[in-house]
Amino acid sequence: MKVYGDLQSGNCLKVKMLLSFLNIKHEWIHVNILDGETKTVEFLSKYPNGKIPAVELDDGRYLCESNAILGYFSENTAFLPDDTYLKAKVYEWLFFEQYSHEPFIAVARFIQKYLGIPKEREAEYLSLQEGGHKALQLMENQLSKTKYLVGDEMTIADISLYTYSHVADEGGFDLMQYPEIKNWCHRTQSTPGYVGMA
Amino acid sequence: MKVYGDLQSGNCLKVKMLLSFLNIKHEWIHVNILDGETKTVEFLSKYPNGKIPAVELDDGRYLCESNAILGYFSENTAFLPDDTYLKAKVYEWLFFEQYSHEPFIAVARFIQKYLGIPKEREAEYLSLQEGGHKALQLMENQLSKTKYLVGDEMTIADISLYTYSHVADEGGFDLMQYPEIKNWCHRTQSTPGYVGMA
Repeated sequence: MKVYGDLQSGNCLKVKMLLSFLNIKHEWIHVNILDGETKTVEFLSKYPNGKIPAVELDDGRYLCESNAILGYFSENTAFLPDDTYLKAKVYEWLFFEQYSHEPFIAVARFIQKYLGIPKEREAEYLSLQEGGHKALQLMENQLSKTKYLVGDEMTIADISLYTYSHVADEGGFDLMQYPEIKNWCHRTQSTPGYVGMA
Repeated sequence: MKVYGDLQSGNCLKVKMLLSFLNIKHEWIHVNILDGETKTVEFLSKYPNGKIPAVELDDGRYLCESNAILGYFSENTAFLPDDTYLKAKVYEWLFFEQYSHEPFIAVARFIQKYLGIPKEREAEYLSLQEGGHKALQLMENQLSKTKYLVGDEMTIADISLYTYSHVADEGGFDLMQYPEIKNWCHRTQSTPGYVGMA
């Protein structure tokens, strides 16, 4: 199996983390977005939306969308509950991640870490702070009630939310305000099989 | 069971459509976002992210995030394949919808239909056109190969993508350029149990 990705990307790290926790063998192929490697004819023929992470299964079938990939590999494992309601609660967090968390925290991080907050994106950068803090506060509130986002065990909801949360400071979000998130990050980092950003 | 929503919202209509197709009885409670009804203390105590649609199950448990709700009700029905790979392909489209489709098409529609494209949001409105057309083109390409987004049967991927696509013209996206999408909309509308926007 091949996985195309970049370990500086939280979306890609999600997949690497789950495969590592589950001990699933794979070939990791580094892809450089800034060099246009997701926009080549060959890449787009497999993954029309031109994004990483992207998976090529051994039988030649393709998967993309980080959280859909997490769902695929976690079916019938401890990382995705069997119970229909709990499974829906995991997916609730996954959709929250893509709509209410990543567009604020990952984008602010990109502007700060990769672009150095250029003048023309300063207003956008500042406008992302409120939404990012709202997302972090919702996580903090949940983690004050349960050890992980959906109950007492780590699920793909935690993996998905962890990757950009643990580097939120690189987008200007001070995690000192969120002690439960910090503890949850430490728990995640001390889980056997943990892999971090490149 | 209670469902909180507004049938002018594509995110809410998704849930109404699936419940109607599956003939699941429920009480629909109209919620007015513009009047702040999703920001009351009571609503936030059930749904901390303050969004609709939102479901209150008969046993008093809560669900939100439109696509997670679709996943919950479609488990073990024809609207969500059993096969792990096909299920992941359905979720691929659901995450695509929330990240690459809704933020362009639904937001452009909101600015055009509800706000009348005020001067101060004109640049934003125009900036959404490219991403919206990209999303529609990806759907068009898939629908030129398969009858529905994941194979020959309607799944929750179709329901999720249908609701904002079929009113994309209200956001400035002319569907005449997308004949496969138009045919797929007609197929959806002639499915027994179909319900449309209010």
